[in-house]
Amino acid sequence: MPITTLADSNPIKLCVVIVGLPARGKSFISQKIVRYLSWLSIPTKSFNCSTNLIQQLKESNTTANQLFNKENTPNHEILNKTRQLTLDQILKWFTEIDNCGVAIYDGINATKFERDHINKTLSDNNINTVFLESYCDDQSIIDVNITDIESTSPEYFNSVSLQDTINSVSNKIQFYDNVYETLTASEESNLSFIKLINFSSQIILNHIDSYLKSRIVYYIMNLHVKNRYIWLSRHGESQYNLEGKIGGDAALSERGIKYSHKLVEIVDKYIPNHDRLEVWTSTLKRTQQTAKYLPFPKKQWKALDELDAGSCDGLTYDEIAEKFPEDFKARDDNKFEYRYPGGESYRDVITRLEPIIMALENQENVLVITHQAVLRCIYAYFMNVHQEESPWMSIPLHTLIRLEIKAYGTEVTRIKADIPAVSTYKEKGTSKLGESNNSLNIMSGSVISGITDKIVN
Amino acid sequence: MPITTLADSNPIKLCVVIVGLPARGKSFISQKIVRYLSWLSIPTKSFNCSTNLIQQLKESNTTANQLFNKENTPNHEILNKTRQLTLDQILKWFTEIDNCGVAIYDGINATKFERDHINKTLSDNNINTVFLESYCDDQSIIDVNITDIESTSPEYFNSVSLQDTINSVSNKIQFYDNVYETLTASEESNLSFIKLINFSSQIILNHIDSYLKSRIVYYIMNLHVKNRYIWLSRHGESQYNLEGKIGGDAALSERGIKYSHKLVEIVDKYIPNHDRLEVWTSTLKRTQQTAKYLPFPKKQWKALDELDAGSCDGLTYDEIAEKFPEDFKARDDNKFEYRYPGGESYRDVITRLEPIIMALENQENVLVITHQAVLRCIYAYFMNVHQEESPWMSIPLHTLIRLEIKAYGTEVTRIKADIPAVSTYKEKGTSKLGESNNSLNIMSGSVISGITDKIVN
Repeated sequence: MPITTLADSNPIKLCVVIVGLPARGKSFISQKIVRYLSWLSIPTKSFNCSTNLIQQLKESNTTANQLFNKENTPNHEILNKTRQLTLDQILKWFTEIDNCGVAIYDGINATKFERDHINKTLSDNNINTVFLESYCDDQSIIDVNITDIESTSPEYFNSVSLQDTINSVSNKIQFYDNVYETLTASEESNLSFIKLINFSSQIILNHIDSYLKSRIVYYIMNLHVKNRYIWLSRHGESQYNLEGKIGGDAALSERGIKYSHKLVEIVDKYIPNHDRLEVWTSTLKRTQQTAKYLPFPKKQWKALDELDAGSCDGLTYDEIAEKFPEDFKARDDNKFEYRYPGGESYRDVITRLEPIIMALENQENVLVITHQAVLRCIYAYFMNVHQEESPWMSIPLHTLIRLEIKAYGTEVTRIKADIPAVSTYKEKGTSKLGESNNSLNIMSGSVISGITDKIVN
Repeated sequence: MPITTLADSNPIKLCVVIVGLPARGKSFISQKIVRYLSWLSIPTKSFNCSTNLIQQLKESNTTANQLFNKENTPNHEILNKTRQLTLDQILKWFTEIDNCGVAIYDGINATKFERDHINKTLSDNNINTVFLESYCDDQSIIDVNITDIESTSPEYFNSVSLQDTINSVSNKIQFYDNVYETLTASEESNLSFIKLINFSSQIILNHIDSYLKSRIVYYIMNLHVKNRYIWLSRHGESQYNLEGKIGGDAALSERGIKYSHKLVEIVDKYIPNHDRLEVWTSTLKRTQQTAKYLPFPKKQWKALDELDAGSCDGLTYDEIAEKFPEDFKARDDNKFEYRYPGGESYRDVITRLEPIIMALENQENVLVITHQAVLRCIYAYFMNVHQEESPWMSIPLHTLIRLEIKAYGTEVTRIKADIPAVSTYKEKGTSKLGESNNSLNIMSGSVISGITDKIVN
C-alpha cells in the first residue's frame, strides 16, 4: 500500500511568487519546483513574466533594449500590463484546475507595493501565497547567470551576440536595481516568504505555515546549482531476462557478467573524476553483481529495488496474460497507476524514490545501477517526462547513461557497451518483448558503441 | 519493497548543538527530534547539560539558586566542568555506535567562544555539527515556558513551590542574559546553523549542507508548540474480525455498525470544539463505514491503510501457521522487521506514515480512524514507544483514544464505548487471539465506559 500523494493530502491552491533581480536564477528555481511537484503528481505550472513582456513589446513595437535603456523614460504602461496579464493567467488557471495545484509566478516583483497587490489579489481569490526571493550579491554567480541567460531566455532570443545580451541584461538589472526592495521580516512581516541568499548558503523563512510550503523549502535546501553529471545503468542481463520472467532475484547471465567487466573500462574511459565516484545499487543480486568489479565505494538502497510485481513476480508476460488477463489489460490501460496484486505501481515507486531524488540533487559523481522501472522514474524526474509516458520509455540493457544536469535542462548521453542483450521492452497491447518504436521512447535513436547522442530536454 | 531508512542512506555522525537562554523550549525541541529520528530508526540520544549540572551541584554542595544568584560570584568551575562532561559523554557515545547516529547537546551554549570550542572538538572527531538556536523575545511565550519548567526540569525538582522555581529560572536567565551572544550569519558565518525566532515564525538557516540536516529543518518547520488533542480510533468490528481473518476489505459487523453510531455521541460529548473537527480514514471500507455518521469534513488517506499482509491477506492466524509455518515464527521473532511475502513490515508502515505524522504535527482537531498496525505506529511516535515493542501493543476495538499533546509529553485518555467486540490481539508464540497481559501493553488497565485513564509518557 503506498502513501497518499501530496496532492491527495493537501487540497490547497498555492501560488509561489518569485522575487529577484535579473540573473538570480529565478527561472531555474521555478522550473525545478515545477518538475519536482509534477513528478509528485501535483498539478504545477510556471507563469513567466518575460514571455508576456515579449508579447507586449511586439505589440508596441519596442525592444527590451529600448525599454530598459536608462537614456529613455521608463514605459510603465508596458510593465504594468505585463504584470496584470501574468496575474490574470494565474487566476484563470486556478479556476480550471479542480482541487489542488501550485502556480509559480516567475517574475521580478521588485517592490513592496507590487507584492502587496499580488498577495491581496490572490488572497481574495482563496489562493495561498508564498514569496520566494533569490537574493544574490555574489558578482561571480551573477556573471555566470547572465551568460546563461543568452542561451535560454526568450526575451533575448533575437539578440545578435552574447555581448548584446549581456548589455541588455545589465541594463535591465540597472533598471530594476534602482527600485528593488529586498524582502525583510521587519518590513513585510505579514508575508509568508522564503529568502535565498546566494542560493542556499543562507535561507530566511518567514511564516512557513503549511505542509506543502515546508516541502518546497525542504526541496530547495537540497538543490544544487552547479553543472554536474549523474550516471545511470540497468544491471547486466540476468537469467530471468533470458527467460523473459519479471521480478525475482536472479543472478546475471553470461553476457550480463561480460557487461559487469566492460563497465569498469567504460567508467574508466568516460567518467571524469571517477576517483571520487560512488556506486549505488539496489539490494538485489543482479545490480550488485553488475557493480562487482567497480573499485569504488558502494551503497545499497532498498529504495532502488525493482517495482514489486506482487503475485506476478517470477512470471513471464505470457503467463501473466493467461493467469491474470484482467490485470494484464488494466496495466496496459494505465501503466502509471496500475498496481500488481500485492505489489506496486509506478506511482508507488516514485513515492519511495523521493529520498533518492533528494540525495541525487545533493550529490555528484554517483553511478546508479538499478532496474528498468526504477530507472524510468529517475529518468522521468530529470528529463521532465510526463507521468503517463514514463512507464513506456525504453531503457536498454548494457548501456551507461550520462545525465549532464545544467541550470536550464539536462543533456543525455548514452554509452552503449558492445555486448548483446535481450530486449525487456514489452509493447502495449501484446505480451511480446521487443524494441519499442514508440514516439515517446525518447531514449531510442541510432547509437553506436562509444558515440554519444545528445538529447536536450 | 520499502524505501531505505535515513540511517541506511546517511551513514553520518551528526551532533545537534542546542543554543538558547533558559525557558526557550530547548528541551522540548531536543526531545521531539529524538523521538522523530528514533521513530525513523536512527540511533538518537539527547545529552542534557542540566542533568550533569545537578550532579556537579551535589558534589560541591551548592544549589542552582546559589549558583545563579547575582549576589554571588559566578562559580565558573562548576559550569565549565558540566560542559566538558556533556561533551565527553557525546564523544564517548559516538565511539559506541556503529555507523550513523545523532546526538543532541541540550545546553545553553551561550557564547561564540563555547560554540567554537564545541565545533572544533566535534570536527576533530569526525562528527558533523549543526547548531540549533531557539531565540525568543516574546515575553508571553517565555512566561509560559518558565511555568512549564517547574513540572519538568530535574534542576528544580526540589523547589518548594512554583514561585521558587520562577525565581530560580529568572535568576538563571539573568545570569546568562549578560553573556548571551545570539547566532548571526555575519558573526559566525562558518557555522552550520538553524536559528528559530519565536519558535518557527521565522527561521534562519546557514549552511544546511546535508540531507539529514535538511530533514531536521523540515521536521522543525512542521512542529507545533501549543497543547492540543489528537483523536484516534480503530474502525468498528468488521466481518473479518469476527472470522479471525487478517487484512481484506470487509464491511463492519453488526456491532461495528453500532459503534459507528455510538461514535457520534462520544465525539459530541468528549471532543471539545468538534465543530472544527476533521476526520481522516483509510481507503478501506471498514474505516469509512465507521466514520459514516460523523457530520464533519473527511479525508481518505492511502497511507492509513492497514499493514499489507501480502500472501497472508484474508487468512486466519491458524491458517498462516499452517501454510507458512516459517513465516509465522519469523514474524513472532522480529515483528517490527518481518515483512509478509509480497506485503509489508512495521518498518514499511512507518516509512509510509511519515507524511501523516508531519501533517498531525501541523494540525489539531483531527480524528484518525484507521487500523490496528497503523494505530500502533502512530501511537508509538507520540508516546515514544520502542520500535521492538510497538507491534505488541494492544489497541482494543470500540475505543476512542485521546492524545493530549503537551510540550513535554503526551497524555492518553481512553474512552471506551460500551459495545462488545472480539479481540484481535495475537499473543506471541501462539495463533490464539485474546487480550494481552503483556507488560509492554501500555494501553491496558481497567477502563470503564466514559471514565478516563491518564497515562503519561
